[in-house]
Amino acid sequence: MTKPQESQDTPMFERIALIGIGLIGSSISHAARRANLAREIVGSARTPATVETAMRLGLIEEGYVTAAEAAEGADLVILCTPVGLCGPIAKEISRSLKPGAILTDVGSVKGAIVKDVSPHVPQGVHFVAGHPIAGTEQSGPEAGFAELFDGRWCILTPEPHTDGKAVEKLRAFWEALGSKVEIMTPEHHDLVLAITSHVPHLIAYTIVNTVSDLESHLQGEVIKFAASGFRDFTRVAGSDPVMWRDIFLNNREAVLEMLGRLYEDIALLQKAIRNGDGTLLHRVFTRSRRIRRSVTQAKQD
Amino acid sequence: MTKPQESQDTPMFERIALIGIGLIGSSISHAARRANLAREIVGSARTPATVETAMRLGLIEEGYVTAAEAAEGADLVILCTPVGLCGPIAKEISRSLKPGAILTDVGSVKGAIVKDVSPHVPQGVHFVAGHPIAGTEQSGPEAGFAELFDGRWCILTPEPHTDGKAVEKLRAFWEALGSKVEIMTPEHHDLVLAITSHVPHLIAYTIVNTVSDLESHLQGEVIKFAASGFRDFTRVAGSDPVMWRDIFLNNREAVLEMLGRLYEDIALLQKAIRNGDGTLLHRVFTRSRRIRRSVTQAKQD
Repeated sequence: MTKPQESQDTPMFERIALIGIGLIGSSISHAARRANLAREIVGSARTPATVETAMRLGLIEEGYVTAAEAAEGADLVILCTPVGLCGPIAKEISRSLKPGAILTDVGSVKGAIVKDVSPHVPQGVHFVAGHPIAGTEQSGPEAGFAELFDGRWCILTPEPHTDGKAVEKLRAFWEALGSKVEIMTPEHHDLVLAITSHVPHLIAYTIVNTVSDLESHLQGEVIKFAASGFRDFTRVAGSDPVMWRDIFLNNREAVLEMLGRLYEDIALLQKAIRNGDGTLLHRVFTRSRRIRRSVTQAKQD
Repeated sequence: MTKPQESQDTPMFERIALIGIGLIGSSISHAARRANLAREIVGSARTPATVETAMRLGLIEEGYVTAAEAAEGADLVILCTPVGLCGPIAKEISRSLKPGAILTDVGSVKGAIVKDVSPHVPQGVHFVAGHPIAGTEQSGPEAGFAELFDGRWCILTPEPHTDGKAVEKLRAFWEALGSKVEIMTPEHHDLVLAITSHVPHLIAYTIVNTVSDLESHLQGEVIKFAASGFRDFTRVAGSDPVMWRDIFLNNREAVLEMLGRLYEDIALLQKAIRNGDGTLLHRVFTRSRRIRRSVTQAKQD
C-alpha cells in the first residue's frame, strides 16, 4: 500500500474546524485534503457570503456563522482569524470544545494570543499556539492553495505545562501540510517576527503612505514610474489591513524595540548622506549584501 | 522584407561604445543586437577580466581598458558606470569624442550627472542624460539580458539648449531597445526617483543592517525564519554597493527631503502603536492598499 492510501484509511483527525476561512484557513483545507488528514472539515465565518463561498469551493463540508457551532465535536479547532479575535472567539467556543480536542491558531503574534486564549481553554482541551510563516498579499477564501505551506516554517509555542502528545500530534499535522516545524517560546517568536516581518511591513505601509501624501502631480508620476524599490514595498503594503492592525496592537513591545534600533541605523545613514561620507555608505551596503547572501543560502527565498 | 532585416541594412548607429559593461551595459548590448541597432559595439571596463568576459560573451567586438579608446570614433557613447564616475570619465574621453556623436548615460541620478558631465562635452557633441528604470539585484557583464528594458520606462533629461534631433534619435534608440520614453527635467527626475527608489533602498539597506547588529543567536533565527517582509527587503538590499553609494552621494537633497517626510509618517504610526490606536492604523493600512492597487493598475508590476 502507498502512503496516501494508508492515511486515507486512518485520517489524523475526525473533524477539523476552521474558525475563519481566509487565505490561511482555505489553504489549510486544501493542504489537509491533499494529504487526507481529516474525515470532515467544517468551518465558520462572520460573513455569510464567506461561508457560502467556502461551501461552493468545497473547502468545508458544513458551514456556520458562529464559531461555537463549528467547534462543536471537532478534535482539531484552528483559529484562522485576525489576531485580535482569538481571545473573544476562545471565550465564545469554550463550552463547545470536546474533551481531548486540540485548539490552535495561526496568528502572527504569539505572546498576546497565549495570554488572551489560555484563560478560556477548558480542562482536558489542549491549546498549542502556532504560526505558519507563509502567506501572500491576497486574502479571502478564494486566495488559498494547497502548496502554501510546502517547505515553509511553522512555529509552535506551547507552554511548559502543555500536553506533549498534543504538541507532537500538531507537529505531525503541520508536517503533513508540508511545513517544517520549530518550537520556541511565545516571547522569542514575537521578537524574531518583529524584525523579520512586522517592522518591515510597518515601513512598507509608511512609505506607501508618504507617497499618498505627495502633491498630486508628483504622486501620479511616482505611481507611473514605480521603480523596483517602491514596487516591492507596495506589494508588502497590499496585505490585509485588519490583520496587520491586530499584529501591531498585539506585538507592541517587540515592534517598538526593533523600530528603535532601526531608527538609530537610519539616522547613521542619513548623517552619512548629509556629510557625503561614501566610505560609511559603502561599508554598510556591503554588509547588507552579505546578509542577503545568507538568506539566499538559507533557502528561504 | 520583414522589419528586422530592414533595420539590419541600415543600423541606427555605426559604432556604439559602452563605457562600463555591467548589468545595464551588457543588457544594452543584448537588446541592441536583438534589434540590429549598431554595425559595431565596443566597450571598456576598468577591470581587464570584465573586458575579457564581455569579449567572450560576444557583448562587444572590441574591448579596451580605457574609456577614451572605446569612445574614439563612436557615434553613440553610453556611460554605464556608477554615477560618481560619469564626470571623471567625461573629462577623460572629451578629446576622443567624434563631432556629431551622441553622449548619454544610464545613471539613477540626473541633476548631478548633468552638472558633472556637461562642462566636458565638446562643441558639436550632443549630451543627453538618460535613465532606464530597469534592473535586477544582479551585477556584472554576465547578468545582462535582451529583455531587461522591454516595456519599462526610460527617462531622458535633456537641457533646454540640447539638439532636438539628438534627443529624438536617442528616444528612438531606447524605444528600439524595448523601452517607453519620457522626457523631464533632471530635478524632477531626482525627486520622483528619491521616493520611488532611493529612499526605499536606503530603508532596505538599513533594516538588513539592523539585523546584522542583532545578538548572534537572534540573527541566526532571523535569517532562518526570514518571512516575506524581510525577504523582500534583503532582495532590494542585495544590489551593488558602489552604485548605491554614488546614488545617495549624488541625490542628497531629494533623498533627505523625502526621508524627512517618511520620518514624520513613521513617527505617527509608532505613536499609534504605543497608544494602541487601532483606528488610525487601520485607516493608514487601508490607504496603502489603495495605492498598491494603483501601482498594479499602472502595469508597473
